[in-house]
Amino acid sequence: MQPDLLNLHALHHFRTRSPLTHCMTNDVVQTFTANVLLALGASPAMVIEAEEAEQFASVADALLINVGTLTASRAQSMRRAIESAVAAGKPWLLDPVAVGALAYRTRFCQQILILKPAAIRGNASEIMALAGMSAGGRGVDTTDTAASALPAAQALARQTNAIVAVTGEVDYVTDGQRIQAIHGGDPMMTRVVGTGCALSAVAAASCSLPGDRLDNIAAACGWMKRAGILAAAQSRGPGSFATAFVDALWNLGEQA
Amino acid sequence: MQPDLLNLHALHHFRTRSPLTHCMTNDVVQTFTANVLLALGASPAMVIEAEEAEQFASVADALLINVGTLTASRAQSMRRAIESAVAAGKPWLLDPVAVGALAYRTRFCQQILILKPAAIRGNASEIMALAGMSAGGRGVDTTDTAASALPAAQALARQTNAIVAVTGEVDYVTDGQRIQAIHGGDPMMTRVVGTGCALSAVAAASCSLPGDRLDNIAAACGWMKRAGILAAAQSRGPGSFATAFVDALWNLGEQA
Amino acid sequence: MQPDLLNLHALHHFRTRSPLTHCMTNDVVQTFTANVLLALGASPAMVIEAEEAEQFASVADALLINVGTLTASRAQSMRRAIESAVAAGKPWLLDPVAVGALAYRTRFCQQILILKPAAIRGNASEIMALAGMSAGGRGVDTTDTAASALPAAQALARQTNAIVAVTGEVDYVTDGQRIQAIHGGDPMMTRVVGTGCALSAVAAASCSLPGDRLDNIAAACGWMKRAGILAAAQSRGPGSFATAFVDALWNLGEQA
Repeated sequence: MQPDLLNLHALHHFRTRSPLTHCMTNDVVQTFTANVLLALGASPAMVIEAEEAEQFASVADALLINVGTLTASRAQSMRRAIESAVAAGKPWLLDPVAVGALAYRTRFCQQILILKPAAIRGNASEIMALAGMSAGGRGVDTTDTAASALPAAQALARQTNAIVAVTGEVDYVTDGQRIQAIHGGDPMMTRVVGTGCALSAVAAASCSLPGDRLDNIAAACGWMKRAGILAAAQSRGPGSFATAFVDALWNLGEQA
Repeated sequence: MQPDLLNLHALHHFRTRSPLTHCMTNDVVQTFTANVLLALGASPAMVIEAEEAEQFASVADALLINVGTLTASRAQSMRRAIESAVAAGKPWLLDPVAVGALAYRTRFCQQILILKPAAIRGNASEIMALAGMSAGGRGVDTTDTAASALPAAQALARQTNAIVAVTGEVDYVTDGQRIQAIHGGDPMMTRVVGTGCALSAVAAASCSLPGDRLDNIAAACGWMKRAGILAAAQSRGPGSFATAFVDALWNLGEQA
Repeated sequence: MQPDLLNLHALHHFRTRSPLTHCMTNDVVQTFTANVLLALGASPAMVIEAEEAEQFASVADALLINVGTLTASRAQSMRRAIESAVAAGKPWLLDPVAVGALAYRTRFCQQILILKPAAIRGNASEIMALAGMSAGGRGVDTTDTAASALPAAQALARQTNAIVAVTGEVDYVTDGQRIQAIHGGDPMMTRVVGTGCALSAVAAASCSLPGDRLDNIAAACGWMKRAGILAAAQSRGPGSFATAFVDALWNLGEQA
């Protein structure tokens, strides 16, 4: 990856603006998500009770909706937060974890799709399921390559007017017309829980940056890919990889 | 520990089958549990809403029930997941965290014991309490040695037809007749939250392997004991120990 | 910081008594909080269902109430736990995360303030909001220095009879009359989620120690400040900092 592909311009914006990012995410990845956002200079906040989520979503710069450990009461809070964010003109991003594989969350995600997400980030199975083109994978892992889901991603982007990122060995970001492919990363990223979920949080925060939204989300993908490469070079397994990954995000751009 | 006690045969099975492990566990250890399973090659998934838990438990290879931060609604979801797993012929493992010390979860665990767990993993106090032989400890820590709980473990195994693992400085795994003792580990394992809970997740996943279930659960105990030794040799405190522990699981078997 | 400012006497008490600390805290910091308490020698336990929380709060040595991811049902459990702790003569500490910024939790914290907390730990915005002197910050971060909130902290301490710790670049601990200032730490502590929340847990546990409560809470602040300095010297970013921080707490006092 060339230094310019790292999009240091967007990274500078991200760090100086420090987007206040309202994360409604799953129970498994909350700490890692917060630490990834902090390492990149953002301000994470997890606020979940319906009344509070509604209040906070209008104040925060961006909202992340991740359905990984969805419950009925969380779904209700998410809906109120989304409506509040939209009313306040704040972007929200949907991470449809395991949609297609599980009926309850699939129905929920289909319902909230009409609430105009600014962006959607998922793996191939999830994006295909959300676009109505597949029955989905067996869980959070995907059995399809991101490239195979690109037509579904484009269709979903056109249907929802959202930027859609379908991620995997190569990440693709599309608005339905344009496509950016982001290479890099390391297989070890799939052996640490939460790298995909944390990318969604960073992409959500990036939606609040000035400039072209597709470029900003592609930049977010690039930062994570780059950190993956740097961390893999310094680790002996997924434990030290996770630590080095957060360090790499913190130091991103220093030696490009 | 000799290389053969590491049971590389079961480890190979574990990694190639990559058991999809449905974890209904406590809020404190979710990330560590997922990362331990990933480091050993399994596929963890945390699914908790009742409808989804019921659907997913029939698809996953094994189900973990850990009552560490039990709530009324989580208890309801767990019950439906267990019934679904049993109906689909999938094994489930009970981790009775702090049973005996707290009345609500003690009642719940006694109720679900009739739903035929494939295995039970706890410390001495918990196993004795579940077997009706003790009032239990003051919390998640145990004041009894695993050896002292061996008669309770055997009685519980005979009563439930489950494999029972009572773990501590030495782990014992029994079906009521046979007993395997697993030595190794390091005291630092008790200074990192979730090593016992993560062992329960690995043991649950091991229940889905072919071959003798008692041997497979003993193998799971052995992997964790071995990783504990390796991690202790490379760490300066519980922070670096936790990181090195996950790395050690990842590299297990490479240099035995 | 001089070795005596580390208060090795209180640290020795902390480690030998190993306070059983009932943590009702937010979803984001549970693992880190547990690991910080374990590294210092305490026994953490997270118990949240109302019936259990009530039972456990009377048994534990201290109770932490952190409203970071407050929900309606969690609020109900917290209230019962507090009442149980107070009835049993056990100290409880309030961490009013983001109070002032969010209406729901602000009301809740104002209501439970009459239940006689032994201590309160927050940043400048939170302490000022709780004392009725400010509208609060934009989230968990504070825009005010701890020193600027010292009058509010003193007023709050006098009003509630609690020890109040307002923390930031410098921590101040006051009973309304006396003030202790604790220097040290490192800016990296603000780039890892949960250092403030974990300090609240340690301070809660410290409330159960013999001796002067203000001194014991100031000691808790000092241990965290010292660990921050040691960890910063050994880390390359917030990932390795968090690991080194836990290691430093574990080794605290060995080389002062």
